[in-house]
Amino acid sequence: MSTNLEQVAAMFVQYYYNQFDADPAGLATLYREGSMLTFESSSFKGTQSVIEKLQSLPFQQIKHQVATMDPQPGVAPDHILVLVTGQLLVDEEQRPMSYAQSFYLVPENVNGQTQYYVHNDVFKLVYG
Amino acid sequence: MSTNLEQVAAMFVQYYYNQFDADPAGLATLYREGSMLTFESSSFKGTQSVIEKLQSLPFQQIKHQVATMDPQPGVAPDHILVLVTGQLLVDEEQRPMSYAQSFYLVPENVNGQTQYYVHNDVFKLVYG
Repeated sequence: MSTNLEQVAAMFVQYYYNQFDADPAGLATLYREGSMLTFESSSFKGTQSVIEKLQSLPFQQIKHQVATMDPQPGVAPDHILVLVTGQLLVDEEQRPMSYAQSFYLVPENVNGQTQYYVHNDVFKLVYG
Repeated sequence: MSTNLEQVAAMFVQYYYNQFDADPAGLATLYREGSMLTFESSSFKGTQSVIEKLQSLPFQQIKHQVATMDPQPGVAPDHILVLVTGQLLVDEEQRPMSYAQSFYLVPENVNGQTQYYVHNDVFKLVYG
């Protein structure tokens, strides 16, 4: 497991949830037309559908707290699969919900810099 | 979401856990030298390491019960990413533990038949 893999995954996860909790619309830069989100078993393909779904979620405030983050190298150079588990709090709810979320990240070269986009995003609440 | 994707993922998931619960050694055919297992944040690469880890788990009996299974198309034709959530019971324990497991499956042609192997396998218990 390379340090770089861990670093990239950690930076991605931190950025993703900070942006999600602040303004999901800002996540649009992370998806592409071939990207897919499955959110509680409903699926959405392409940046616009994904972001519309994230913006339509029925809460005013959300806070993700990451508990674990386990990255692995994907099937092509620098691809990353990462499984996140954590808890989230919505609105005035005091009891956090547990969730699991699996991302598959693909690198692309943007003006000489490597950036990652989300090819796969599968989110599930996990009930104890 | 194609029916075929759902069918292949469902068949894989059913086979995987039936085999795991009966005899983890039988899962050896599903991994390759480039395959990786991350089990509770410890990582293992290659068929032998993966199977040794699965066989070393400290229980006599285990029963997985799948609650949800959400597949998506991966980054190349017929690749599949699937996030499973469920519960497991070990030995005489009465209280099930929740888990999440993300697989990335890659097809290969074996004597004219398409079979899938596990390129990525990330397993985490999820605490409520």
